[in-house]
Amino acid sequence: MSPSKQTILVTGGCGYIGSHTALRLLESGYKVVVLDNLSNSSYESLRRVHKLYAAYAAAHPSSSAHEDAALSVENLIPFYKVDILDKAALATVFTAHPEISAVIHFAGRKAVGESGRIPLDYYNVNISGTVNLLQVMEEFNVRKIVFSSSATVYGNPPSIPIPETSPIVASMSPYGRTKVFLEHIIKDLCVASVLKQQEYLKQSSETRDNVNYEWSAVLLRYFNPAGAHPSGIMGEDPQGIPNNLMPFLSQVAVGKLEKLSVFGKDYPTEDGTCIRDYLHVVDLAQGHVAALAKMEQEQTEGQFGCSAYNLGTGTGYSVFDMVKAFNKAVGRELPFVVTERRAGDVPNLTADPRLANEALGWKAEKTLDEMCADLWRWQRNNPNGYNDA
Amino acid sequence: MSPSKQTILVTGGCGYIGSHTALRLLESGYKVVVLDNLSNSSYESLRRVHKLYAAYAAAHPSSSAHEDAALSVENLIPFYKVDILDKAALATVFTAHPEISAVIHFAGRKAVGESGRIPLDYYNVNISGTVNLLQVMEEFNVRKIVFSSSATVYGNPPSIPIPETSPIVASMSPYGRTKVFLEHIIKDLCVASVLKQQEYLKQSSETRDNVNYEWSAVLLRYFNPAGAHPSGIMGEDPQGIPNNLMPFLSQVAVGKLEKLSVFGKDYPTEDGTCIRDYLHVVDLAQGHVAALAKMEQEQTEGQFGCSAYNLGTGTGYSVFDMVKAFNKAVGRELPFVVTERRAGDVPNLTADPRLANEALGWKAEKTLDEMCADLWRWQRNNPNGYNDA
Repeated sequence: MSPSKQTILVTGGCGYIGSHTALRLLESGYKVVVLDNLSNSSYESLRRVHKLYAAYAAAHPSSSAHEDAALSVENLIPFYKVDILDKAALATVFTAHPEISAVIHFAGRKAVGESGRIPLDYYNVNISGTVNLLQVMEEFNVRKIVFSSSATVYGNPPSIPIPETSPIVASMSPYGRTKVFLEHIIKDLCVASVLKQQEYLKQSSETRDNVNYEWSAVLLRYFNPAGAHPSGIMGEDPQGIPNNLMPFLSQVAVGKLEKLSVFGKDYPTEDGTCIRDYLHVVDLAQGHVAALAKMEQEQTEGQFGCSAYNLGTGTGYSVFDMVKAFNKAVGRELPFVVTERRAGDVPNLTADPRLANEALGWKAEKTLDEMCADLWRWQRNNPNGYNDA
Repeated sequence: MSPSKQTILVTGGCGYIGSHTALRLLESGYKVVVLDNLSNSSYESLRRVHKLYAAYAAAHPSSSAHEDAALSVENLIPFYKVDILDKAALATVFTAHPEISAVIHFAGRKAVGESGRIPLDYYNVNISGTVNLLQVMEEFNVRKIVFSSSATVYGNPPSIPIPETSPIVASMSPYGRTKVFLEHIIKDLCVASVLKQQEYLKQSSETRDNVNYEWSAVLLRYFNPAGAHPSGIMGEDPQGIPNNLMPFLSQVAVGKLEKLSVFGKDYPTEDGTCIRDYLHVVDLAQGHVAALAKMEQEQTEGQFGCSAYNLGTGTGYSVFDMVKAFNKAVGRELPFVVTERRAGDVPNLTADPRLANEALGWKAEKTLDEMCADLWRWQRNNPNGYNDA
């Protein structure tokens, strides 16, 4: 089956990872439908996807991209301002697009600190919203999903690098718990669907409706996404004060924030700051395309079910390492202050990425310097993110 | 504060444990509002509560019960046929009853085996429904809840009897996972509410709205509820084939089912069958009244937050023990067959009930023989449950 025939629904497709993934899907020959409530994202990101896709098509005249490169953004990327809490609205998207064959599900709330203050909102949006989505997918016989999980499901892992077999724990924050719980929910759904299909096959063939009830799911455990599209026109656009190191640093660099707060330098690491596995958002986007391809391949072999993969580089960098690398990209030393530890932070989250390498044929390819240079290009060109548009 | 002033919303109040608890609340001087979608229960149970309460009032002429013993069932127990998935309908109940001061939350799906077949339904009803309820409670400034948890949160515990400090695991079934996840959700809500109250108290007193944002929650981990009201007019009325040992046995006794299936006799127990801690439903109901009283007392001392208590007898009985005890009540030997183990069953779940004894002043008081005699009286008088009404 040619991937050009497949239409992927991307929930949260206007967000940071969603928009980069939408672009990689288009470049890889998929059609894309985007759903987003725009609560923490901007439609402008899809205009950037559209622009970058046109550039890609021009640069790859022999690809299938030239066929739809002339489409308007509205026609290239059908967009629905829909909240996943609104089940009826979700159903209208699937009704309008019966060609949707899989969903990449990014929509959800994602700020660790905020989740501790308003946990019910997090459980409502992330859990109830995702259960809604899964129920509507069932209703429309779409049983293929790539889910945005997180390295936070490993809690404070017993060993580094972290393989996928490391214990999943009810983690460090309500945000983290939503990821853990959703991994369980999706796994339970996959297990139940195998039983359902077995029951179905016991029916006489006349009464069968030719539906395959088995689900395919990939849980992608992201380590620390960073960077931006190398064009400098698409990147992360956090509302308010960024929760994560790299967007915080880049806002210091453009003068929107005074100085970086380094949350603790008494961790049991070489320089005392936390170590994370930062991966370039374009590599991360490609991981989703690889996961889709893997599920398609497995389905042609009659394989269904739920798999989990780490998406990380396998290399950990400390906060000070990252500051140093970003300083190099910016060309000056950005101010920082060391403050208290932040609740829920663990010393080291570094992926063992071998399973994704082997099973998905995926590998993070961009360097730390590229990540920093691309982030800086985006931030410098768009000091106020998509509000500059 | 006299408990007679307090109105308690009982969700799932037409169910087995809900109806017995509604009666104990009335007998203890509370007012009760019941909400139930009647998906797996019958309104008839509230007519029985009404009848039993009248009998209680007649027997206790000096109690406050005589005051409202003459009320109709509709006036004694305001009832709302509402599904917890319907947030707007939930809100109408709180609007109609601004006097509600706490919620005892039973509503939810509860069949372990079914949860493995239709996990999304379980996550939807139990998790999304409960999150809805908690959000509506916040909206109406009702921040006191008793939640129906289960011994299943202990998984296969490392030691018997099981104290509340035994690890909580993402358990043996989707049903069990809904209980584990909801315990986390309620705990997170309590923790967040303390922070919210601290922020609130930093405001100048003029702008304060005199709300206390702190939640009180009690998670009651039920072991194996069994038996029926000793009157023989109120008991468990399972739809279809019962999932649990005692109602199954009692349906064998009245000839509705042919014979008991004993799921495995190769467990590492004395007779090879699973050991459970069966407690009388009237004792269990009293545990909820004790939990409410505890929260009220703590609040007068300025204490809030989330506590978990085992409700069990502390004595485990094997399946064969229970068959023998029930045979004695019935006066003949009921037929059984030993079949394969059932997925997800663990060898032994016996409570350490000391914490509930000490902190709640609660203790299971009914004997095994009473449990069996009461169950048999109910089943014999009502072979088709409330359908005989």
